[in-house]
Amino acid sequence: MADWTLHVLIDPKQVPLDGVDNLCRALRDGGATVAQLRGKHSDGGELIRYGEAFRRATRDTGILFIVNDRVDIAMAVQADGVHVGQDDIPVEVVRRLAPNLIVGLSVGSEAELRVAERARPDYIGMGPVYPTPSKDDAGEALNVDGFRRLCLRAKRLAPVVAIGGIQPDNAKPVWESGADGIAVISAVMGAPDKRAACFALLASRG
Amino acid sequence: MADWTLHVLIDPKQVPLDGVDNLCRALRDGGATVAQLRGKHSDGGELIRYGEAFRRATRDTGILFIVNDRVDIAMAVQADGVHVGQDDIPVEVVRRLAPNLIVGLSVGSEAELRVAERARPDYIGMGPVYPTPSKDDAGEALNVDGFRRLCLRAKRLAPVVAIGGIQPDNAKPVWESGADGIAVISAVMGAPDKRAACFALLASRG
Ligand code: NI
Repeated sequence: MADWTLHVLIDPKQVPLDGVDNLCRALRDGGATVAQLRGKHSDGGELIRYGEAFRRATRDTGILFIVNDRVDIAMAVQADGVHVGQDDIPVEVVRRLAPNLIVGLSVGSEAELRVAERARPDYIGMGPVYPTPSKDDAGEALNVDGFRRLCLRAKRLAPVVAIGGIQPDNAKPVWESGADGIAVISAVMGAPDKRAACFALLASRG
Repeated sequence: MADWTLHVLIDPKQVPLDGVDNLCRALRDGGATVAQLRGKHSDGGELIRYGEAFRRATRDTGILFIVNDRVDIAMAVQADGVHVGQDDIPVEVVRRLAPNLIVGLSVGSEAELRVAERARPDYIGMGPVYPTPSKDDAGEALNVDGFRRLCLRAKRLAPVVAIGGIQPDNAKPVWESGADGIAVISAVMGAPDKRAACFALLASRG
């Protein structure tokens, strides 16, 4: 059974290639369970190089490794899974191309939840919970009440991972709303001590 | 044997989805031999929809169908091939993922030709021959003399398709330099009569 507790999304632009090993060790030590490579502005060659580095480092540390959007990269580096948005390759096409990959799908509204109900992803990335500048393609924030309502329904379908502006000081109500996990970018990648940042996010679960 | 004579690169933003059939008929009637889907600013879902439409339309018209960059899209829509740049997924990784796909590789310098010599693509896209605003990631123009020199060496390796700023009125020296084919964007997609535009480009072969 996969552990969805703490996803950290990493852009290749945020870490040098030879820093991937250390980063993954810090994430593991802090309690992160999933690393997602998300290079919206990276070419395929860079994604392959980082994907291979993350595959090696996560295998060593026991962290699940997921690639955002690019099914070809996920297949080439033998990632554990791929995460797609509602505008990306449809889940059923991913299943056909790569039946062994875990598939996550983003959901940010009731309409998108209906898509998920048909598509049957292995987990749902739900958000943005809070307003955030880092996901440029994200919709309006659900806020805690909206997240709770949508999460309650989505949980019948698949584990729900909350995303969007989550930080140690606002994560508690997200856990209390039923999230099976949280996904962060800046809360960890923007912190000088990434292990401590992961730890603080998990401590917020209470 | 594939016919590399005239590639037309098409961005999903340049044609409505329900216009793909007519476009492919015009390309075929004008003598185009390859259609390449190149959506640098398209999400995977859009590429799948256009890829499926181009696959259907090109199968009907006998045009070869190639997808730029995204091996997953090429595999999912059963394209004939994929074209990668020097910064994209390496040719050998493409071969491993999808052994049946034709693989084209961009070459714009002697250093990049050496990469191609190791990678052994099925064809080489060489350019930019002329300065062009449409390939934002392209290097400096080779100009006709530079193209001729590089083409001469590359032809021993694979068929060479010239790209970059080629129009009916400057195509003749490109053919005379040994190009096995030419690839265009605006010369066809920017023309009101696409069939006539293809025809004019082929007439320049003399
Ligand atoms: Ni861009």
